[in-house]
Amino acid sequence: MATLHHSPFCPHSRFIRLVLAEMGMEPSLLEERPWERRDAFLIINPAGTTPVLVEQSGLAVPGAGIIAEYLDETRGLGLSGRRLLPETTAARVEVRRLLDWFLVKFDAEVTGYLVTEKIFKRFMNSAAGGGPPDMNAIRAARTNVRYHLKYIGYLMSRRKWIAGDHLTYADLAAAAHLSCVDYLGDVPWDEDETARDWYARVKSRPCFRTLLADRVPGMAPADHYADLDF
Amino acid sequence: MATLHHSPFCPHSRFIRLVLAEMGMEPSLLEERPWERRDAFLIINPAGTTPVLVEQSGLAVPGAGIIAEYLDETRGLGLSGRRLLPETTAARVEVRRLLDWFLVKFDAEVTGYLVTEKIFKRFMNSAAGGGPPDMNAIRAARTNVRYHLKYIGYLMSRRKWIAGDHLTYADLAAAAHLSCVDYLGDVPWDEDETARDWYARVKSRPCFRTLLADRVPGMAPADHYADLDF
Repeated sequence: MATLHHSPFCPHSRFIRLVLAEMGMEPSLLEERPWERRDAFLIINPAGTTPVLVEQSGLAVPGAGIIAEYLDETRGLGLSGRRLLPETTAARVEVRRLLDWFLVKFDAEVTGYLVTEKIFKRFMNSAAGGGPPDMNAIRAARTNVRYHLKYIGYLMSRRKWIAGDHLTYADLAAAAHLSCVDYLGDVPWDEDETARDWYARVKSRPCFRTLLADRVPGMAPADHYADLDF
Repeated sequence: MATLHHSPFCPHSRFIRLVLAEMGMEPSLLEERPWERRDAFLIINPAGTTPVLVEQSGLAVPGAGIIAEYLDETRGLGLSGRRLLPETTAARVEVRRLLDWFLVKFDAEVTGYLVTEKIFKRFMNSAAGGGPPDMNAIRAARTNVRYHLKYIGYLMSRRKWIAGDHLTYADLAAAAHLSCVDYLGDVPWDEDETARDWYARVKSRPCFRTLLADRVPGMAPADHYADLDF
């Protein structure tokens, strides 16, 4: 059985948990606190980041985007109609463009700030960067999330799913990142109904269940967080 | 003929120029100043970043990592022994791990700071974020580059090329990023001879020639920048 080294509120880990669940894979989960820079973890991923998928063979695959490519290459064909990276060239470009949008751009502008400042810093000691949240970073993220939500609404007004006619990695990456922000109550859902409808649709999928059950110790989620008809 | 929208000192654009040259492709080059957010450019890449490869068919492929995957899928098999993404699963994971290392991590910790502060800000107006360089950002980048150089030295003490036995995307991405930092004189080459030898080897390849001829208006490169035996 494969093992996934993850952190429950790391959005990249959440993305891979969704992907694995959609593919019907149930790896054993091993929780990392990446900021502790555990030696054995740095050996399997020198970058020290979650997630890392370790196959039974011992092969370690680090990083959300890399795991997504790896899973498509090793299991994609077996999924046929449920494949999360489409087959045609132009559709693959579009999925990867949006995957990168959420894993890199949305992360740099929104999730990275909010999750670090509001969640991770609670558990880091001061040497690792712990301490009170930087309100400027939080304010920047809350401003930035609005145009991303509008962009999702724009895409969803023209398409069935974020990258086209089918559910793909792009939907799962976007939803994984938004789920972290939503736990913190920082998604202004009332500003875009189309984006909200799409998120409700992804959130209702069975793959989302275990994510919605995770809790930050000492910090309750926003009221509507686990509500499927929010 | 394909067109590459690029910016001469954008390290991601440089990476794709090296890749295209290694593949024997000669696209027409179209210079963008991404901070100007040109409308026609935002249509082909809503993220507003360089590079974007536009095929003669009109298909726009935005983003260095996405272009690399696209080129491997559409031209990789024709390259046989000179393919830049290897064929076996474990080797592909390693190339993608290191590609991500340089395109995302090295960029966030080194190149992004230096190129923005020292080059791009000279040409941005104040509304776009222009102005004098932030010396804290430059200092952080100069500290960070040292452990990256050491990591390259570590890898090269065990391997023929960065990701294994062959030249891959990982070498070209690392060299593209380092070339920007080297123009600015901010690579402490004397701290790692193994890393320097590897860079001299990549820099001597024909693909590097046109990159080394580019100049920032009003700003000469470091003395050894274009010297192949530095």
